[in-house]
Amino acid sequence: MLSIAVHLDYAVPRPMDILLQLHAARIPEQRVMTENFVLPPYDHVAPVAAQDGIGERVWVRAQERLLVDYTATVEIDRILTPCAQLDATPLHLLPGETVQYLMPSRYCPADRFHDYVESTFAGLEGGALVIAMRDWVQGHLRYVPGSSNSDTTAADSFIMRKGVCRDYAHLLITFARAAGIPARIASVYALGVDPPDFHAVAEIFLSGEWHLVDATGMAKEADMAKIGVGRDAADVAFLTAFGEVSFNAQWVSVERG
Amino acid sequence: MLSIAVHLDYAVPRPMDILLQLHAARIPEQRVMTENFVLPPYDHVAPVAAQDGIGERVWVRAQERLLVDYTATVEIDRILTPCAQLDATPLHLLPGETVQYLMPSRYCPADRFHDYVESTFAGLEGGALVIAMRDWVQGHLRYVPGSSNSDTTAADSFIMRKGVCRDYAHLLITFARAAGIPARIASVYALGVDPPDFHAVAEIFLSGEWHLVDATGMAKEADMAKIGVGRDAADVAFLTAFGEVSFNAQWVSVERG
Amino acid sequence: MLSIAVHLDYAVPRPMDILLQLHAARIPEQRVMTENFVLPPYDHVAPVAAQDGIGERVWVRAQERLLVDYTATVEIDRILTPCAQLDATPLHLLPGETVQYLMPSRYCPADRFHDYVESTFAGLEGGALVIAMRDWVQGHLRYVPGSSNSDTTAADSFIMRKGVCRDYAHLLITFARAAGIPARIASVYALGVDPPDFHAVAEIFLSGEWHLVDATGMAKEADMAKIGVGRDAADVAFLTAFGEVSFNAQWVSVERG
Amino acid sequence: MLSIAVHLDYAVPRPMDILLQLHAARIPEQRVMTENFVLPPYDHVAPVAAQDGIGERVWVRAQERLLVDYTATVEIDRILTPCAQLDATPLHLLPGETVQYLMPSRYCPADRFHDYVESTFAGLEGGALVIAMRDWVQGHLRYVPGSSNSDTTAADSFIMRKGVCRDYAHLLITFARAAGIPARIASVYALGVDPPDFHAVAEIFLSGEWHLVDATGMAKEADMAKIGVGRDAADVAFLTAFGEVSFNAQWVSVERG
Repeated sequence: MLSIAVHLDYAVPRPMDILLQLHAARIPEQRVMTENFVLPPYDHVAPVAAQDGIGERVWVRAQERLLVDYTATVEIDRILTPCAQLDATPLHLLPGETVQYLMPSRYCPADRFHDYVESTFAGLEGGALVIAMRDWVQGHLRYVPGSSNSDTTAADSFIMRKGVCRDYAHLLITFARAAGIPARIASVYALGVDPPDFHAVAEIFLSGEWHLVDATGMAKEADMAKIGVGRDAADVAFLTAFGEVSFNAQWVSVERG
Repeated sequence: MLSIAVHLDYAVPRPMDILLQLHAARIPEQRVMTENFVLPPYDHVAPVAAQDGIGERVWVRAQERLLVDYTATVEIDRILTPCAQLDATPLHLLPGETVQYLMPSRYCPADRFHDYVESTFAGLEGGALVIAMRDWVQGHLRYVPGSSNSDTTAADSFIMRKGVCRDYAHLLITFARAAGIPARIASVYALGVDPPDFHAVAEIFLSGEWHLVDATGMAKEADMAKIGVGRDAADVAFLTAFGEVSFNAQWVSVERG
Repeated sequence: MLSIAVHLDYAVPRPMDILLQLHAARIPEQRVMTENFVLPPYDHVAPVAAQDGIGERVWVRAQERLLVDYTATVEIDRILTPCAQLDATPLHLLPGETVQYLMPSRYCPADRFHDYVESTFAGLEGGALVIAMRDWVQGHLRYVPGSSNSDTTAADSFIMRKGVCRDYAHLLITFARAAGIPARIASVYALGVDPPDFHAVAEIFLSGEWHLVDATGMAKEADMAKIGVGRDAADVAFLTAFGEVSFNAQWVSVERG
Repeated sequence: MLSIAVHLDYAVPRPMDILLQLHAARIPEQRVMTENFVLPPYDHVAPVAAQDGIGERVWVRAQERLLVDYTATVEIDRILTPCAQLDATPLHLLPGETVQYLMPSRYCPADRFHDYVESTFAGLEGGALVIAMRDWVQGHLRYVPGSSNSDTTAADSFIMRKGVCRDYAHLLITFARAAGIPARIASVYALGVDPPDFHAVAEIFLSGEWHLVDATGMAKEADMAKIGVGRDAADVAFLTAFGEVSFNAQWVSVERG
């Protein structure tokens, strides 16, 4: 069981719409046992279903200050098949809803990596290919806090050879899509992230199901509570402000509960 | 009524999965009266629902040659409210399924255009804002066949000031998203496209519904049959080959039927 | 007369070559009256002529710590013809050494801006054109410290509409080159820069000579002491380390002497 | 001895300045024995010294049609020290005029490749390092005519893993600069280029001198006549038109004379 706590404190200079995505998702593979979500009494709070129906986003009409406290306990019950035992689904048998995750996205220009992926991982398929890609990313990037920003794409990370969790995820996703394997990002709460923060990992479609893969090696799939999924980090930001907010304070805590 | 005919002829050097997206969508706003889709007897043909459940994609396992003939007659019954009469939906009231269309995508880096859009279109809202954006794109880009390629983003078009239909659509979509209005791409068959070809336009979410807007000014919304929608051109290509194919011949014809 | 003082203090984790470019240039338009350049006794200090023979760069073989103190008094004797009275030199009459400043460079991709410049500044030439470009940059960018980094090009600034002095200079240079006018960057010490720091401005070739133009409007051409020139900021950094150094302290002071 | 012939034929819709750079350079390492340069009688033809004083550029004020015939015979007398025997010059001993070739340029964003180069070529220095870089480029890129365009940078080629001669040169130059070795581009006439065309190679500063290195492996350094040098392809285009010209015909022939 994971015990999660989040505190956000941002100044909001003028009334503004803010999209939060930080609830642990209520999905079969994890059970939200307790949950508490506290905001000051704003004008308006509207939860909407998040991407692919996994988790939820909350629209907040904020003013002056955004002050959020979220706590939850989540029991993880994820089937964890070793990646090596998984198969790629032939493209022409892919379900319709996975097709969008073959396409390039803002941070994952997979269309530019076909030749690289084909020559670098020649002869590998399915789970073995994904493991090789994960190991490549883990072995070739350095984890350097502050080395990337909201403009950094997987192409940039591929060149610069450094990044943070989202960059690791983006590059692995880009490689997988370039090889014809659907891949998306998952924002998660995970044990073992140091310093504690929101975490992002890749989710790869193998043997007919989505499988979490953390290219940073920081967290285990069994110790992650999913928040939401998307094409890349643009879709799963914990806070998207439609205007300029300024940071006061923030922390995330994830512990074995 | 639109009478549509498409002919595709590509060489396929080795057995390969190809994704086609060229069927006129069966949706309330248009009625597919007759339709014929002919391929040689390949190993496998699998239709899957396309993005947002609008239209369909077809997986084809092709070999040696991809030879497609598609014909359809489509009756358009689209409610055409003048754009100027439409309102923006406040962000915190947007339905969950539209949220993904606020986000930047491969060809539409809307996150980079906030300041530009805010200062350029200050004081405008809803339909009036979208009209101003459409006019901006139409007035500032030159339509130059061959001036863009599959790597060209809306940022490139904004600088280069030229492009083709997809570039016009991408830039309008980018502007709309940067202003907090959901916007997606629609691939369509349209009367008036010269030379006749697949066409791409923006679709903007106003007054609670999606509205087609053609920034090239080439086609009227009443004369378009939708094929599919997506975040940008990456999602709605009529042909996505997972390998290298070579072009033999292709034509598209759209006439008043 | 300008009274200049610079203090640099960087930690140098391993012996490393560092290129400094911070001496006021000894050129006809400005007279270095007094000058003092103090470093700890390093292994090696080698001055070399800087780009176009304007100013000098100093190679330093540093270890442990780079500690530089530079002071100078400089009398400016620059002929200041109002820009509006200057003419463009026809391209085919340009001296050979100015040709390189027509070409795109790392931060100034002028090749991409031909159409934009041609349509935006139609009908203008020579000094009047340069004034219009300078006013455009000043009017369309916001000066936001921290809004750009060492990867930011003029194309980025054109989209983002914000930046610092180097971004202003880059965009003006890009516009001028795109219009067929040689333009380079000049690093300067200037009165009026707030907070005091190294400053960068454009230098434009008109009426057969180079003319300083500050698109930020912060400093007057009469109050600038040139350090060096180059194609863009890559050429005139005050400190280029061939390895990783870490910042301890730094300040720049420019006063009327 | 090389026997060179070039024919250019372009339509020039309106009077326009055009910069040609196609004369074999008159420099110690090669002797221009005979030379003939024929243009129709235009308004104005002005030769100017090219970059670093190597070769020349010719300004042409053209109208209606640009028709150029150039022939030359050139004896090559280049000292060809095997690259492996050459040493890197320590940075702090580099002559001032080589410093600009350490800097990033339009097509060679060397600043982004430090980490990659450091980890990939660890332990190598001087000529051995350059050979390893050349072999890397030759081994990892595919030569695919038409696969790049005038917007393609070394960063793009590094990702796409294909290109033509200029892309090979750009990537090698980028690697060398990232390792602190001055590197520039040289446009050359070379035996063995198939199909015959202008050719571009890297030139690397080792043991105190510039050395030609062809990462495509198509041509030998002994069989190249230099036209000019520059930071990258932007500086050494054989034709730079300040306006739009349209191609009629062009050929290049290089034979053992």
